[in-house]
Amino acid sequence: MNIEGAEKIYKTLRVLVKDKPGYLGRLCTVIGEHGANIGEIARIKVGVQFNTRDVSLTVGSEDHLREIMEAVGKLEGIIIEEVIDPVLELHKGGKIRSTSRVRLESLAQMRRIYTPGVANVCRAIQADPELAHEYTSIDHSVAIVTDGSAILGLGNIGPVAGMPVMEGKAVLFDKLVGLSGIPILLGTQDVDAIVETVVNIAPTFGAIKLEDIAAPRCFEVERRLMERLDRPVMHDDQHGTATVVLAALLNATTYVGVSLKNQTVGIIGLGAAGMGIGNLLLAHGVKHLIGTDLKDEAKSMLAERGGHPTTLPELMAQADIVIATTGVPGLVKEEMVRPGQIILALSNPNPEIRPDAARAAGAAFAADGRSVNNALAFPGIFKGALQARATRINDRMKIAAARAIAAAAEKGELVPQILDPQVHLAVTAAVERAALESGVARSQGD
Amino acid sequence: MNIEGAEKIYKTLRVLVKDKPGYLGRLCTVIGEHGANIGEIARIKVGVQFNTRDVSLTVGSEDHLREIMEAVGKLEGIIIEEVIDPVLELHKGGKIRSTSRVRLESLAQMRRIYTPGVANVCRAIQADPELAHEYTSIDHSVAIVTDGSAILGLGNIGPVAGMPVMEGKAVLFDKLVGLSGIPILLGTQDVDAIVETVVNIAPTFGAIKLEDIAAPRCFEVERRLMERLDRPVMHDDQHGTATVVLAALLNATTYVGVSLKNQTVGIIGLGAAGMGIGNLLLAHGVKHLIGTDLKDEAKSMLAERGGHPTTLPELMAQADIVIATTGVPGLVKEEMVRPGQIILALSNPNPEIRPDAARAAGAAFAADGRSVNNALAFPGIFKGALQARATRINDRMKIAAARAIAAAAEKGELVPQILDPQVHLAVTAAVERAALESGVARSQGD
Repeated sequence: MNIEGAEKIYKTLRVLVKDKPGYLGRLCTVIGEHGANIGEIARIKVGVQFNTRDVSLTVGSEDHLREIMEAVGKLEGIIIEEVIDPVLELHKGGKIRSTSRVRLESLAQMRRIYTPGVANVCRAIQADPELAHEYTSIDHSVAIVTDGSAILGLGNIGPVAGMPVMEGKAVLFDKLVGLSGIPILLGTQDVDAIVETVVNIAPTFGAIKLEDIAAPRCFEVERRLMERLDRPVMHDDQHGTATVVLAALLNATTYVGVSLKNQTVGIIGLGAAGMGIGNLLLAHGVKHLIGTDLKDEAKSMLAERGGHPTTLPELMAQADIVIATTGVPGLVKEEMVRPGQIILALSNPNPEIRPDAARAAGAAFAADGRSVNNALAFPGIFKGALQARATRINDRMKIAAARAIAAAAEKGELVPQILDPQVHLAVTAAVERAALESGVARSQGD
Repeated sequence: MNIEGAEKIYKTLRVLVKDKPGYLGRLCTVIGEHGANIGEIARIKVGVQFNTRDVSLTVGSEDHLREIMEAVGKLEGIIIEEVIDPVLELHKGGKIRSTSRVRLESLAQMRRIYTPGVANVCRAIQADPELAHEYTSIDHSVAIVTDGSAILGLGNIGPVAGMPVMEGKAVLFDKLVGLSGIPILLGTQDVDAIVETVVNIAPTFGAIKLEDIAAPRCFEVERRLMERLDRPVMHDDQHGTATVVLAALLNATTYVGVSLKNQTVGIIGLGAAGMGIGNLLLAHGVKHLIGTDLKDEAKSMLAERGGHPTTLPELMAQADIVIATTGVPGLVKEEMVRPGQIILALSNPNPEIRPDAARAAGAAFAADGRSVNNALAFPGIFKGALQARATRINDRMKIAAARAIAAAAEKGELVPQILDPQVHLAVTAAVERAALESGVARSQGD
């Protein structure tokens, strides 16, 4: 069974293995014969006759796992004790917590961080509200707001089922740039209610990151919040993705030796990500942008912004650069690919065309959503905006972020590794500078 | 200058002191002569002729500090370099942050906590919403919600100036019971808007702690939120304080050898704290409750709940137990105290009568807000309610918490030390049990 390209499942098989030569080998052979990948094998208990081992597997589906377990179950000297889901294990108790940055070991400390000492800090901020930047956590806190209407590619599964994604973003904020990501799960999908609620809680946060809110609602929510609030608001699905796509295209066009601005760019799927990409490419100066979507409303929106609606076959025939964000696996067929095209098929976890298939069909460059990951952009964009005390995140800041990401990629790669701390430092610095230069930064008092 | 009873200010004097015998002594003598208390003296730099020292001072006011600095400035061989506010220093950058509970060091980890692995966790919760208790941070997160209308005794200073208090509560949640306290600052003081906003963000949190919201608005906000939400909602100013007061009274009446239920209890000041105390004492079974307030509306509310409105002189003449929560320092005069009374003067930072003065006037027991601190109650109340997956925090749970707090006090003390972890464990266990016994706990799936 070929599990390449399909959605993989990670499982850990806890097995008792007879402590004699050959048994572990037979176990691995049978698993391999059934097409699963074996990761780590840990020995977690040594017994008299049997050792207990945790065998990490990557399988293609639950059926595939059952098939393997059946085969393993027939082996003499091997007893399956338990199937553990290591991903679920990792999420147990949630992935984030709110922690104290100060010590609390004595009553004297208590009296300083709590009453009566804390009253002095409150009074100082009351007298000079600017001091809130210095003496509260507001400036390093970003609300991660979702209504649960478009969680990953899973659709409208609700905010609570989306919480693991929001916590994941908070983990990335913490680990990559030291910001505090605070998930906010909205129990409403009404645009007015979303806007009022976020406006009402906005004083708590330095910035607002909208997350996994469905199109077209997301456009209005973001626009109205940007009008109402004096602090950065960004819908990551639109602009985080767009920033990384722009970075990838800056590099791809350099490698191919053409100017991005003069290429015909085609976007398949004009939802949050597709429209965000289109807008940023137009802001960057791309002259010929075409796009297609099943919904006429989405095509009209593209036309309003300066793009040209078309059909899928037309788009594939005309575009030098193809960007697909449809959520439809396999939508782009190999025979549609024109030699020399740059193709980013971004739907997660299953792309519109697999990069290897696109390259085999003649694409000059091809990538999927795993490499073009918005986590390259959003941590540094928010950190830079907060450091500049920016009132908004504008196109110039996003383009600066894209250039910084592009510059950090190794020669021949579209984008850099996501866990490289230098990337996030570079994005932060570039965005902060762009905020200052474009006049959206507030005085920093230093 | 006598700084006892007044609000104290903590400052650190950074001084260069000539490195010869006698200079440090002279410095300390002059500070002492001017009535300031000296805390720690740290030597932070050793120079050729001078050492740099940080002298921690407790002074009565900014004027008092200036007076001391003037006197110190006249000393030969002592140079004042800087006055540091150690409380502000401690609050720099805020007191809390949102941190990851998982490691992020490899792409494999990234793919488990973020896409694509996280999709499995989302799907599992979508299929069985109960799993959110297990695989998200919701169940250990408590929103700390304020509109900034009654911050400590400082009044309506707004939510942002109140943030240091909210962060202080979050520090206590983290350090005392391991819960995640998430401040939510509301940019509105409208009851309808507060209720709608909190309802809309409630899915994020296991419980809602209302904080420093002014009376009488706080009563309606709490009541409506309790009606609308299926999870614990508690206004700490009412019920946290009430729980600790009940604990203190259980011990005080035991020491005096009377039954609390048969005493006449008088409450001066029927705001959030006063009404909360009154309600809990009635729920506990106190038969004769009297109270007074400047506002007729507050007195009517007391009468509705089963108490008897009266005047301040009448109350002082009749009550066996006096509880003052007015925010008016010195309101209760020594000549008003009846011998044998138990007096809790709770206004922070300056009580209605100083405990030593009350005792000198014949009170059997007297305490102020420093010892009767709601931080003894709220951490364990919320932790116990969350462990029981309670739908609400009822009187039985609060009374159970009060008994646990009372039982943890040392003989002769009204309440235990706040940093004693045993207290919070005992409160948690008692509240969880009371939730289960009173039928507000949901099935725990184990």
